[in-house]
Amino acid sequence: MLKVAVVGASGYTGVELLRLLHCHSEVAVTCITSEQSAGRPVADVFPTLRKRYGQILENLEPVRVAEKADFIFTALPHKAAMEVVPTFLKLGKRVVDLSADYRFHDAAVYETWYEPHMNPELLAEAVYGLPEVRRDAIVDARLVGNPGCYPTSVILALQPLLRHGLIDPATIIADSKSGVSGAGRGAKVDNLYCEVNEGFKAYSVGGVHRHTPEIEQELSLLAGAKVTISFTPHLVPMDRGILSTVYARLTAVKSRTELVELYEEYYEGEPFVRVLPAGSYPSTAHVRGANFCDLGIAVDERTGRVIVVSAIDNLVKGAAGQAVQNMNIMNGFPEGMGLEGLPLFP
Amino acid sequence: MLKVAVVGASGYTGVELLRLLHCHSEVAVTCITSEQSAGRPVADVFPTLRKRYGQILENLEPVRVAEKADFIFTALPHKAAMEVVPTFLKLGKRVVDLSADYRFHDAAVYETWYEPHMNPELLAEAVYGLPEVRRDAIVDARLVGNPGCYPTSVILALQPLLRHGLIDPATIIADSKSGVSGAGRGAKVDNLYCEVNEGFKAYSVGGVHRHTPEIEQELSLLAGAKVTISFTPHLVPMDRGILSTVYARLTAVKSRTELVELYEEYYEGEPFVRVLPAGSYPSTAHVRGANFCDLGIAVDERTGRVIVVSAIDNLVKGAAGQAVQNMNIMNGFPEGMGLEGLPLFP
Amino acid sequence: MLKVAVVGASGYTGVELLRLLHCHSEVAVTCITSEQSAGRPVADVFPTLRKRYGQILENLEPVRVAEKADFIFTALPHKAAMEVVPTFLKLGKRVVDLSADYRFHDAAVYETWYEPHMNPELLAEAVYGLPEVRRDAIVDARLVGNPGCYPTSVILALQPLLRHGLIDPATIIADSKSGVSGAGRGAKVDNLYCEVNEGFKAYSVGGVHRHTPEIEQELSLLAGAKVTISFTPHLVPMDRGILSTVYARLTAVKSRTELVELYEEYYEGEPFVRVLPAGSYPSTAHVRGANFCDLGIAVDERTGRVIVVSAIDNLVKGAAGQAVQNMNIMNGFPEGMGLEGLPLFP
Amino acid sequence: MLKVAVVGASGYTGVELLRLLHCHSEVAVTCITSEQSAGRPVADVFPTLRKRYGQILENLEPVRVAEKADFIFTALPHKAAMEVVPTFLKLGKRVVDLSADYRFHDAAVYETWYEPHMNPELLAEAVYGLPEVRRDAIVDARLVGNPGCYPTSVILALQPLLRHGLIDPATIIADSKSGVSGAGRGAKVDNLYCEVNEGFKAYSVGGVHRHTPEIEQELSLLAGAKVTISFTPHLVPMDRGILSTVYARLTAVKSRTELVELYEEYYEGEPFVRVLPAGSYPSTAHVRGANFCDLGIAVDERTGRVIVVSAIDNLVKGAAGQAVQNMNIMNGFPEGMGLEGLPLFP
Repeated sequence: MLKVAVVGASGYTGVELLRLLHCHSEVAVTCITSEQSAGRPVADVFPTLRKRYGQILENLEPVRVAEKADFIFTALPHKAAMEVVPTFLKLGKRVVDLSADYRFHDAAVYETWYEPHMNPELLAEAVYGLPEVRRDAIVDARLVGNPGCYPTSVILALQPLLRHGLIDPATIIADSKSGVSGAGRGAKVDNLYCEVNEGFKAYSVGGVHRHTPEIEQELSLLAGAKVTISFTPHLVPMDRGILSTVYARLTAVKSRTELVELYEEYYEGEPFVRVLPAGSYPSTAHVRGANFCDLGIAVDERTGRVIVVSAIDNLVKGAAGQAVQNMNIMNGFPEGMGLEGLPLFP
Repeated sequence: MLKVAVVGASGYTGVELLRLLHCHSEVAVTCITSEQSAGRPVADVFPTLRKRYGQILENLEPVRVAEKADFIFTALPHKAAMEVVPTFLKLGKRVVDLSADYRFHDAAVYETWYEPHMNPELLAEAVYGLPEVRRDAIVDARLVGNPGCYPTSVILALQPLLRHGLIDPATIIADSKSGVSGAGRGAKVDNLYCEVNEGFKAYSVGGVHRHTPEIEQELSLLAGAKVTISFTPHLVPMDRGILSTVYARLTAVKSRTELVELYEEYYEGEPFVRVLPAGSYPSTAHVRGANFCDLGIAVDERTGRVIVVSAIDNLVKGAAGQAVQNMNIMNGFPEGMGLEGLPLFP
Repeated sequence: MLKVAVVGASGYTGVELLRLLHCHSEVAVTCITSEQSAGRPVADVFPTLRKRYGQILENLEPVRVAEKADFIFTALPHKAAMEVVPTFLKLGKRVVDLSADYRFHDAAVYETWYEPHMNPELLAEAVYGLPEVRRDAIVDARLVGNPGCYPTSVILALQPLLRHGLIDPATIIADSKSGVSGAGRGAKVDNLYCEVNEGFKAYSVGGVHRHTPEIEQELSLLAGAKVTISFTPHLVPMDRGILSTVYARLTAVKSRTELVELYEEYYEGEPFVRVLPAGSYPSTAHVRGANFCDLGIAVDERTGRVIVVSAIDNLVKGAAGQAVQNMNIMNGFPEGMGLEGLPLFP
Repeated sequence: MLKVAVVGASGYTGVELLRLLHCHSEVAVTCITSEQSAGRPVADVFPTLRKRYGQILENLEPVRVAEKADFIFTALPHKAAMEVVPTFLKLGKRVVDLSADYRFHDAAVYETWYEPHMNPELLAEAVYGLPEVRRDAIVDARLVGNPGCYPTSVILALQPLLRHGLIDPATIIADSKSGVSGAGRGAKVDNLYCEVNEGFKAYSVGGVHRHTPEIEQELSLLAGAKVTISFTPHLVPMDRGILSTVYARLTAVKSRTELVELYEEYYEGEPFVRVLPAGSYPSTAHVRGANFCDLGIAVDERTGRVIVVSAIDNLVKGAAGQAVQNMNIMNGFPEGMGLEGLPLFP
């Protein structure tokens, strides 16, 4: 049994990790921390865990955590992660970090969009943990930067097209829509039920959302050239799910059927990518609670554009599920272990 | 008092017309028809109307309707509208038709996307009833084709840019999101609560939605040249509201502030268009139940694109409210009469 | 035009008052206060008001407010209300207070459930403002204590039965369910979208909710004897609406039809009470945004109990709408003025 | 591996069985039937199952089904179940039936509330499958009548009180609230998103819901005397979950703490019943997707009543999960096998 710690468990990503790890047969959760609720039973903070998790939430003291666990998930806000991750690594632990702190190859990009980096030397080593893009590098990684939710949905949508050079990267527009859990569990008026319910809105309009450079970094690597995109996130009145509608101009005439086949081939063997048949498009309702990324592909022949629609559960494939998938790869477990649960519908 | 008929009142648009007309001081609703519920009190079909509407739903017999009313709203499915509208006109009535049957200037376009037109000769006369675009023509119209919900949101978003020639029309992408009432009140599994709730999806992907040619017709007129766009509708788990996120490449360098000012100027004096201050973006929650179209404008300097976000209530500015606005213009009533109600929030 | 102030306008009740007063033809809103947002345009705080309310939110200085307005709505938390209401009265203003501070006839009851009362001498004068119970007393009141949302729904449900002595008051159980707007606009984790959505729960279980003594006070007056009830509130994942299911043992054999007739007779002429036909039961969806109280009556012959189901919009008949109704009565306006809007459906 | 058939898989209960059985390590689903979708891949009907269930939906031919499977779940409407269950039994199969057809000990009761019974002789043998009430009888049952969703929530709420004789059974009132999935997947206007969303209502008011006699049958057995109750179901705008608020008069003075302890003792060792600490009450949000029944107990000292609040997921503990639990008991599997998944939150 792998002894695992969940560091920062008072948010939605933390409790989702606990939910998934509970069904993982090779893992024991031996330490759970929360700065704001230390000392309280975790099942008090999240009553869903009652009768299954008896643990008390602990303070985040890295050395103590490292004594109790061999593998560490850090589900902290950015900056808080880079304050503790180096200690875990020094003590010989392997880490999947769910913040943005280790997702960037170039510290300058991180610093432009976030803040000064405290251990930029780790960025060279950290692996951007999208298994469908770089599974091999994850196997031996000490430190995985778990991808953001929006980037996961956009990168998986575009990978086959970029690898095959079928679109003009300068024309990419990603219009993404997220459920409210992506906004976290902080007590803000903006996220109150009555503020969010029965409304739909855009935010961070104009290319200013922090996931933009993360998406661009990965798309650029796939395209083999610097890619700049327009990315607009929106807020959907639902708990979970991200749907991205991604537009680009095709550089060659391709039919929908051809592209669906190309995607099926490209993602063949991937346990968590489901390419939908031509004419079907994904819904976040069909991935809720599961680690799938569903993809639907259309061609608008009148305008010469391809439109790829992708759906994930932002807390699973967009966060905790992908983190578990990375842990499995890093430890030689079957990649889908603990992730067998099918989507909850309705 | 103008005697008004609401023809086809068993759907959401019909009941919305009745809701709005109840507060209109120059109007008396003298006839309400419904094929499927004829003979039943309208307040049985829509309990919201109890104690305020005592009428019995009638069969749709055009001559009888015309005897009772001088002004007619037809809230019928397409095709059903063109079966009765000519009779109303012959009998000297004026009509606002909320179907697609009289929105197209060119019968061929209608026939490509819908079906053979039964009275194409009326298309030359019918006025596309978007007051913010052609108020003057509405004044004397006998027949107004009330715009579709998506088209209203997209056309108002782009009008100032196209009139000023500030964007490349070939680059227009409209990514639109609608509440569920847009799908109507038919008994379909797809629209059941549990199928729709907590999910978000795209539909009619690839430029195949019937509102596409309607949008293109109007944008082409504004641009003075044929415009082809990519339009993708989505379904949001909420009752009401449409939000359109519209992208286009700027043909000149313009700052957000400049564009906000241009929009403010352009729509100055419009009672129902609200241009938001720079940095603010609309939410459908802020127009729910009211006839407003809220607009927010951003510039993505990295990509040279403008992004306009527009929000309307699909049943009000996108249907019944706009129809009442047209009726007001056609009859010389104050344009906002009966439309004074502010949005319901929360 | 009556000059009106809305004191405490940063909550949901405040904005609802502004929404309703906007359509009132005898009223001008001349002063709007908010402690937390003073100095900001009210339309910044509530974008629904854009282009219709240009006012700046003011600090709550009672003397200044009184200079600007002749009639005052206080939409403050309890305690904050009794700090300012006496000043308004002294300056000759009339007040509808929407807090709990002036709802109790007996200061001791208030002090048991709330806190020490600062001006108990006003309680004798204040009128509990439920027009369907004591319209006459409201006419000349200087100070009206606007009823709580739950009490409104329960008292109107039981009034005919208690007045006719048809139930055993010792057997009354009120099981009430409220939308989330009743919890206010404070930034609390408990009221976040993701905490509330897709869940249903009871709270203040065991007779400890503060609306209990308020309901009992009024039921006791109707019954002519002290009444003690079981009252359990619940939280429904929706913005607006209260539905109360009220149970009591009949003291005489009565059929459903007889009771429906009795209710129809009792509430005949009431503009805002709608007694549903036998076999129909109310839904909060059918009163959303309007000042109605819908009532459905059933008899469970197997157990000898009557079950009355009542539905209101907690922000309208349960707060702001009832306050406007009271204002109308106090000023000799038609009772329904400004309250003509029909429920929004869907 | 136990070969299992799911008969009637086009509804929400059917797909929930498939979801749960997918994670059960001792079971292989070898046959899935659906009258309305026979011949289609099950993953077409429920896209959540894509890439995990490759089966084609079959017609319901009992003999063929019995050739393929040794254990059968019938998730059919009532009446349809009793048309096929006898055949399965004759062919030596064991059955968990999720309809109402085998829940009643007395055919006369079934016939009063439903219709003539086609095989009343089986009622004596069929076991009402509530493990927390009669686990021992389930072990050897050939035929289990899986309890209704409302009855499960009410019976578990009252069992300890009735067994200890602590309440007057004549005073029991069960006020229950259900998510919309309980209404099934039929195409009805009443269950459309826009009809249900943002509304709350009661239905089958007055003791006329068919779950009433089922609850009374079981409560009578627990009380050792005939029990008649008032039961009112309500519809909550959410997908899943039932919360029952159950009232009764205590026959002895008991404090909340005493009763919580009594419940803890009573349900000690039960894997799926969670008694909440004094002062905590359940939410359906905390059992979503899992097989738990959460219980909270309050005493209203002013009225001498106990109030028990219970929460389940209607599709899990109220249907498919309980069915799997019964299957486990009948086959000697660990009782929680396949039911390890924790509730999904948010």
